[in-house]
Amino acid sequence: MRRISRRKTRTQPGSFPQQPFQQLDNPFAPFEIFSADHIEAIHNASLQLLQETGMDFQLDEAVEILGRNGAHVTPGSQRVRMDADFVMEKIATAPSHYSLHARNPKHTLRFGGSSMAYSSIASAPNVSDAIHGRRSGNFEDYKNLLRLTQSLNVAHFVGGYAVEPIDLPVQTRHLHALEAAVRLTDKAFFGYAIGRTRMEDAIEIARIVRGVDRETLSIEPSVHTVVNSNSPLVYDGALLDGAIAMARAGQIVIYTPFTLAGAMAPVTLAGALVQQNAEALAGIAFSQCVNPGAPVMYGSFTSNVDMRSGSPAFGTPEFAKATIASGQLARRYNLPIRASNVTSSNAPDAQAAYESQMSLWACMLGHINAVNHGLGWQEGGLCTSYEKFILDAEMIQMMQAFLSVPEMDEDALAVEAIQAVGPASHFFQSPHTMARYESAFNAPLLSNWQNFENWQDAGSQDATTRATGIWQQMLNEYEEPALAPEISEELSAFVAKSSEAGGAPAL
Amino acid sequence: MRRISRRKTRTQPGSFPQQPFQQLDNPFAPFEIFSADHIEAIHNASLQLLQETGMDFQLDEAVEILGRNGAHVTPGSQRVRMDADFVMEKIATAPSHYSLHARNPKHTLRFGGSSMAYSSIASAPNVSDAIHGRRSGNFEDYKNLLRLTQSLNVAHFVGGYAVEPIDLPVQTRHLHALEAAVRLTDKAFFGYAIGRTRMEDAIEIARIVRGVDRETLSIEPSVHTVVNSNSPLVYDGALLDGAIAMARAGQIVIYTPFTLAGAMAPVTLAGALVQQNAEALAGIAFSQCVNPGAPVMYGSFTSNVDMRSGSPAFGTPEFAKATIASGQLARRYNLPIRASNVTSSNAPDAQAAYESQMSLWACMLGHINAVNHGLGWQEGGLCTSYEKFILDAEMIQMMQAFLSVPEMDEDALAVEAIQAVGPASHFFQSPHTMARYESAFNAPLLSNWQNFENWQDAGSQDATTRATGIWQQMLNEYEEPALAPEISEELSAFVAKSSEAGGAPAL
Repeated sequence: MRRISRRKTRTQPGSFPQQPFQQLDNPFAPFEIFSADHIEAIHNASLQLLQETGMDFQLDEAVEILGRNGAHVTPGSQRVRMDADFVMEKIATAPSHYSLHARNPKHTLRFGGSSMAYSSIASAPNVSDAIHGRRSGNFEDYKNLLRLTQSLNVAHFVGGYAVEPIDLPVQTRHLHALEAAVRLTDKAFFGYAIGRTRMEDAIEIARIVRGVDRETLSIEPSVHTVVNSNSPLVYDGALLDGAIAMARAGQIVIYTPFTLAGAMAPVTLAGALVQQNAEALAGIAFSQCVNPGAPVMYGSFTSNVDMRSGSPAFGTPEFAKATIASGQLARRYNLPIRASNVTSSNAPDAQAAYESQMSLWACMLGHINAVNHGLGWQEGGLCTSYEKFILDAEMIQMMQAFLSVPEMDEDALAVEAIQAVGPASHFFQSPHTMARYESAFNAPLLSNWQNFENWQDAGSQDATTRATGIWQQMLNEYEEPALAPEISEELSAFVAKSSEAGGAPAL
Repeated sequence: MRRISRRKTRTQPGSFPQQPFQQLDNPFAPFEIFSADHIEAIHNASLQLLQETGMDFQLDEAVEILGRNGAHVTPGSQRVRMDADFVMEKIATAPSHYSLHARNPKHTLRFGGSSMAYSSIASAPNVSDAIHGRRSGNFEDYKNLLRLTQSLNVAHFVGGYAVEPIDLPVQTRHLHALEAAVRLTDKAFFGYAIGRTRMEDAIEIARIVRGVDRETLSIEPSVHTVVNSNSPLVYDGALLDGAIAMARAGQIVIYTPFTLAGAMAPVTLAGALVQQNAEALAGIAFSQCVNPGAPVMYGSFTSNVDMRSGSPAFGTPEFAKATIASGQLARRYNLPIRASNVTSSNAPDAQAAYESQMSLWACMLGHINAVNHGLGWQEGGLCTSYEKFILDAEMIQMMQAFLSVPEMDEDALAVEAIQAVGPASHFFQSPHTMARYESAFNAPLLSNWQNFENWQDAGSQDATTRATGIWQQMLNEYEEPALAPEISEELSAFVAKSSEAGGAPAL
């Protein structure tokens, strides 16, 4: 076949073929696992559960807020029951759309409807790569993973600490970790809701780097966090404390039940979804009691366990169905939704790829707005892999290309072009081809399309080996995004002052 | 977490966790890439192309048949033009549903509507595995791949020669290859349409092993073949010769244009689909001229090339969209459709997994009835990999589990079970869990869900390495399916007699 020389295109930043950073919008109809009737059955069952059993809110202030707003508090306990009317009335004030602002306005994201965005992995205790092996989380790897997040256009936002920097002291870790996040990237970021101080520090850092006042920040959300329930039916006190700070400041909280079917939730998919829905709605109702209109997201994390061992399994068919069904539930309430790109694999191998693909397709089909853990997740979230980070970038870029609606007009239909070529010829040098070939197809970042002999001559590198070369080169080519000197100084001063003041309590 | 001991379930045949062999039916709504208007635009453009430009049918008998039935033949040439009315009238007699009969009736498959089935790879010239490396196709590997096809319940039918047995003489290769296919498996099989003799021998072998007469065979299709067009706009003479034999005998022909966008078809997706649709409809119209009502399938194989090298690329976002759009076109004509599970990767690695996943999701979403090359495809079809065979089996089993509609009733909603467990507990020993855990979730064939430490202690095997162990054990445990002695004798006699008579000409 003929070779067509290729000009380098779409390669900013760095020298890799990348599509530009873009706000994605899913142009296709959402997929449905359950009929509308069955979604209604899940909805009703979850409201029944909140009414009859309720949830434990392990923070007296939260219980007091809920009681004051009309929920039923069992005296002397933290058990809160909610009538169906209370839940529906409260969640009605949650916004269906909002933006998550980044310090670089080009990286601000819209959430809601059919928007889509992918974040870097959050909260892994370990990190690994093919050169240095597996090790505990540390600040240096944390920073490198931020650099990759900045370099990859499909990493739309920072999802949390890609790996826990355990070499930083607990009380001031969040200050240094967040400072690194906002210096090494100019994308939207995440603060941990581990008590109110950490959350407020994250909000103040967002305000500083965006160069706005608190009032502007309160109508332009610039920090997001996740509040997991301790399934079944418990919200932890420290997380609620952080959630209160976020709601009051108008920042985004994602209420994500940790409903592993067969372990912390019923073994049936419908049952696990009933519990997930009850817990998510309870959290969202709570947020609206704190501050009506505060931006929230419906969190979907339902998966199943391996019934032989009790270990969680991710990227399974059950996970895919739960994710898509969760999209149906979130649309039922007109709420933005997050899910995840996950795998149980212990290596960045074929299993990691196919379990992540199950996740990514489910997220696309379910119209998931925020795909958390989009890049780097391995070992059920216990390890971030540099190679998996690159594998995920490629898979997300493919999904992004899938989401572009094909051209459709007379030129695209190409009847004249086919007639000009005619039978028993080819299209390589057809003017129709020559005018379009540079941008006609998705250009791979990682995939190798060489024939076997050329691939063998080049060293027979499998995809994982090639991924190692890519992240190494990407780190070499990384450039820190500019930060105005006065903002940089204000940031340094805030971190220094807060650190000297002792940071936040170790919880 | 607590351990729940697991009784061995669903493990027939062999000792691997497998779902039973089953006729799949897609319970979900088909996905749509194009609006109905745009599908109509593709339809109209393809009819315009057949009317104005036509196709070359490189067999005088085929040209004569088409001319006699009302197509326009350019005198002195093999160029055939078809009016829109001619095409629509002819394809209207093609059946929307039919069965492909296997010698074991339990393995007979239904095609049409929302049915789904996956076949083993066909026609690779090379074969590879992690133990013996890569080599040319040969009869021993051919037979081993049949044994795996028989052993894996998700391999619904034999898609062709999983690897070309080039050590068998060309003239009699089909006789020995087909004999092996029907002895080593009792699943439905494939004959090659390389001239009429080979096709007729395949049909006779089907008749013998099914123990029926020709008349029964003609209403119970028991052989299938693929007729590719030489895109653009050519049908090869030898294939048409085989296609005539198949249509007359009432056997299944899949007309599959080889429309690689940017090479043998326009660089635009819409244009490539216009050409695919024209070529497929022309083939199907031809089949109905030969024998109205003969079973046919719409073939989708549209993908794109790498514009840097001209090499074909498979499992791309463009391939996925083309596959789903082809499903829309086939439904427009009420015809069964085939597509493929494909990758360009040169190794059974993460790229192979994610490109195959792109293919498998597209096939599921597009309501593809026959997923050809379902198991084993690597290197753009130039090599069959034993490890990829197992990877694909796992991925197909996951897709099969995805296709089961979740239970939905009061028990499944599990409100009472959640209430009985209550907040801050777990479901491991809940009666609701205990009654259901054995069959609640898909059990993996290949995926490893151990934690990192246990996985490391067991040798840190990645998915590809584990696949090697699985195919080896599967071959060790293989048992040849029974064949009645009188049928076995008749089969041997037919092969011996036909071989002595010289087999079929080398084309």
